Parts: sequence; C-alpha cells; structure tokens
Amino acid sequence: VTDNQQRLTLEDLAIGQIFESETIEVTSDAIKRFAGEFDPQPFHLDETAATKTFFVGLAASGWHTAAMTMRLLVQSVPLAGGIIGASMDEIQWPKPVRPADLLRARTEVVDLRASKSNARRGMGKFKTVTLNQDGDTVQILVANLVLQRRQGIDP
Amino acid sequence: VTDNQQRLTLEDLAIGQIFESETIEVTSDAIKRFAGEFDPQPFHLDETAATKTFFVGLAASGWHTAAMTMRLLVQSVPLAGGIIGASMDEIQWPKPVRPADLLRARTEVVDLRASKSNARRGMGKFKTVTLNQDGDTVQILVANLVLQRRQGIDP
Repeated sequence: VTDNQQRLTLEDLAIGQIFESETIEVTSDAIKRFAGEFDPQPFHLDETAATKTFFVGLAASGWHTAAMTMRLLVQSVPLAGGIIGASMDEIQWPKPVRPADLLRARTEVVDLRASKSNARRGMGKFKTVTLNQDGDTVQILVANLVLQRRQGIDP
Repeated sequence: VTDNQQRLTLEDLAIGQIFESETIEVTSDAIKRFAGEFDPQPFHLDETAATKTFFVGLAASGWHTAAMTMRLLVQSVPLAGGIIGASMDEIQWPKPVRPADLLRARTEVVDLRASKSNARRGMGKFKTVTLNQDGDTVQILVANLVLQRRQGIDP
C-alpha cells in the first residue's frame, strides 16, 4: 500500500481489529552487527563469551527485537500518515531472541480516541506481540500511535 | 570498566544516584541507514519527502533514538553482569531527533529491590532521559534492569 488515501484513518479502525505481519529471519551476523553499533555487550557479540552470561548463549539486544518488530509493523499496519509512535506504555522481553529465530508480529487495536484539540488527528493504542517460530512470545509492546482522521487526510 | 568485579551490584547502588554519559552525534546518513533497515518511512528516509509529513523534515526513528541511548547506557552505567532489561515501564519521545543533534543520556536510580526467589539477583528501576545539545528532552525511558547481588557476583 503506497497511496496514502488507501491507508487507514481513525474511522477505518475498530477496537479488537488484528493485523498479522510477514516473518523476518534473525541471523547471528545481524545480532552481532546491531550489538556492535548499539549494544556492545558480550551476550550480544560473541557466542563463546555469551555462554558464561545471564543469557547462556548469544541473544539479540532487546532494542534489536524492537527495531525488527517496527519493520514488521510498517509492513503489516497500513496507517494513513505512517506509523508514528508518540509513546510506549510498556515493552517486555519474556524470552530471548536467538540466531535463526523466525519472528512475526501480531498487532491488536486496543483503544481509539479522537483528538480534542485537532480535528484532523486521533490516537490509537496498539498491542503488538512478537512471536518466534515456536509460537513463544519474545516481545510485548503497547504503543500509542498518532492517527489521521478521514476528513483531514493529507493528499 | 571491563573487570566485572569492579562493576556495580545492587549493594553499590543508591536511589537518587545519577550517571551521566558521553555524547553521540546523529548524522543524516545514520538516520537513513537505520530507517532503511528497520523503519522505512518517508520521514526517516528522505529530506524532501519528510517536509510533507508529520515531522516536517527528516527525523530519526524513535527506535534509533532508543538504540543510541542504549549505547550511551552501556558506556555510562557499569552494572555487574551488564545492562539487561527485563522490561520497560514507558518510553516517550517528546521531541524529534534531527541530523547533527548531539545526544547524551542522564540516568537516575529510581528503585532497587532484592529478588525474593534468587539470592544472587535483584532488580533496579532506572529513568534515563536523553537530551540534545540544546538541553531538550528527546526521550524518556523507564527501564527495569536485572542486577547482581554482591555475594553472588560472577568471577
């Protein structure tokens, strides 16, 4: 979906609506590359060193999981104006992400609200659960996203 | 600090304690590179396209800001066993991060707790504010981090 007028506004969404993403494969190289730039700690950088840590083996940075989930969100939730997070209510990482994991994101509309000060905008609360190939939850994210109203949609 | 025994355990921390990071420079190239991989939306990818969006100009992905903040945290908060986030209570992005911004992170210990089930572990709540060169807050993060106890420190 590239035409903004085909994308979803506040009026097109409903509480309880679900969006399912494609999958993304996690590689050992990608884990180490992300960690080298943003989270240089032994359990994200080196298989051998990682065995002696809390994670007992190489694990992706939680921020890498969040970033991969964002990619899945952009692909699966076609909001008018794009996916713009104002804030996050919570992030949990119940289980580590490992090399060769296949991740997907399942997003549910939890709340919808019109803006009181701007007739062209609203806010939506979205709960995104990131799952691995075994169906284990590796991340829970509750995000407050900026929405466009149908009458205010940008051309 | 590379020797784990010189790093901070639960017993070495105090509520109200502050950690100040070095700075990191945000470049237009880094914004676009991160976005290309994880958040491919016009306002993070292209200066011209970005002028017509919510951000009215190129802005870093919030997840890029979070990832850069993690790098500053790893550099500035020397916890025994590393910085391991169990969950985040909130993330806010009150102001966009722009090319040429110079970011730093200021972290405060908000709460400390021993684990009831594991005598070697505890949890700490840390509030990290990410500031730009003008002193504006670009991110507020409240993180629950895994702590080691002094008697349980890994060699």
